[in-house]
Amino acid sequence: MRYQLYYWPDIQGRGEYVRLALEDAGADYDDVARGAGGTSAMMAMMEAGKGTPPFAPPFLKAGKLVIGQTANILFFLGARHGLAPKAEAARLWVHQMQLTIADLVLEVHDTHHPLGLTLYYEDQKAPAKKRTAEFWKERVPKYLGYFEEIVAANGGAYVTGRRLTYVDLSLFQIVEGLRYAFPKHMQAFEENVPRLIELRNRVAERPNIKTYLASERRIPFNEQGIFRRYKELDASHQS
Amino acid sequence: MRYQLYYWPDIQGRGEYVRLALEDAGADYDDVARGAGGTSAMMAMMEAGKGTPPFAPPFLKAGKLVIGQTANILFFLGARHGLAPKAEAARLWVHQMQLTIADLVLEVHDTHHPLGLTLYYEDQKAPAKKRTAEFWKERVPKYLGYFEEIVAANGGAYVTGRRLTYVDLSLFQIVEGLRYAFPKHMQAFEENVPRLIELRNRVAERPNIKTYLASERRIPFNEQGIFRRYKELDASHQS
Repeated sequence: MRYQLYYWPDIQGRGEYVRLALEDAGADYDDVARGAGGTSAMMAMMEAGKGTPPFAPPFLKAGKLVIGQTANILFFLGARHGLAPKAEAARLWVHQMQLTIADLVLEVHDTHHPLGLTLYYEDQKAPAKKRTAEFWKERVPKYLGYFEEIVAANGGAYVTGRRLTYVDLSLFQIVEGLRYAFPKHMQAFEENVPRLIELRNRVAERPNIKTYLASERRIPFNEQGIFRRYKELDASHQS
Repeated sequence: MRYQLYYWPDIQGRGEYVRLALEDAGADYDDVARGAGGTSAMMAMMEAGKGTPPFAPPFLKAGKLVIGQTANILFFLGARHGLAPKAEAARLWVHQMQLTIADLVLEVHDTHHPLGLTLYYEDQKAPAKKRTAEFWKERVPKYLGYFEEIVAANGGAYVTGRRLTYVDLSLFQIVEGLRYAFPKHMQAFEENVPRLIELRNRVAERPNIKTYLASERRIPFNEQGIFRRYKELDASHQS
């Protein structure tokens, strides 16, 4: 089956977690909004008329199915492409981890938009600095420390053990994103999560991922996405 | 099967979405942390040793299964207690809506803690006012308007039609929470979402929910939960 992924054409954003899964699986897909007329097509899909409209991109069309919410899309794809275990307990566990990553992603966004996403960053720089300080002091250690312990408890390769899941692909993206947005903070922090960094390297070396990252399909990080590099937010780090 | 729900004993919080599902289903469950030694038992469950620790409460023990993340728990319970459709497409759709509610819940929390949850509210009152203004101007209309349209497009009773799902129970809680935390804002807003208010009333009249709400098992709203009543955050409304 050829999928249609609907997501904003100029950013990695939440769509990237889906792209990484599709790419690692070697799945056929169109990144619809990056084609001619694609953004209009995406907006039309969000009309409520049919009774099951997505609230926001990303969403994935798989035949007649239209699935929204990043973690939900991955739950669906994981089962079909060997990116998640098949047994119910393990499947729910992997989904649970992905939902925790979704919470982290929201908190990353709040570092630059603590007063809300419809206001300009320039109008919330001071609160953004405070939120970012709290993020690095309290939240990054809690989230990444959590995944570090899970990797350790399961043998050290991937979060569930020897086989990759979509959660590992998402953790790769988290590490890449934090490195991009907060290079100083992250450089100082990485020694606390050595297994997570090894996991990141393991993912980066997977053939399909390697090909994808080197291709034009991988949109570069930029300041419209979730992970944004604002010097003043990375400057508070005491090194 | 008798379930064990693990959640903070003094607040509704995210645990309430699970409690409402268990109560409507008439399921047997222990609200573990509300019993003697329960909070310690909950904390012990979060140790990483076993390889699949929950990141945070709520989590549900169902026999040997331990399931974390509110929407994940509801996905599990929905299938077992007739609180969600059985077909895959519909099951994913209901879960998708619940994940959108989870995003809204995080945004509600951000209204009083825009600078992060480990700082005191008293130290972030001014940013909280700005975030709350944005929340009511942009976000509540977008989220509640979305669900209003879905209810309308599906016949007007519940989000998927004539049968209740756990999403309807959660929307009841959203309306109750917004009424508690922002009585003035919400009173002025409700006329925009008449179907959602009718849905709320329909849920409130369900026998098991009615019994639950009148019982001591329903913890009152308070200023440690997600929905907090701070007069200054409700005062900006122009009525």
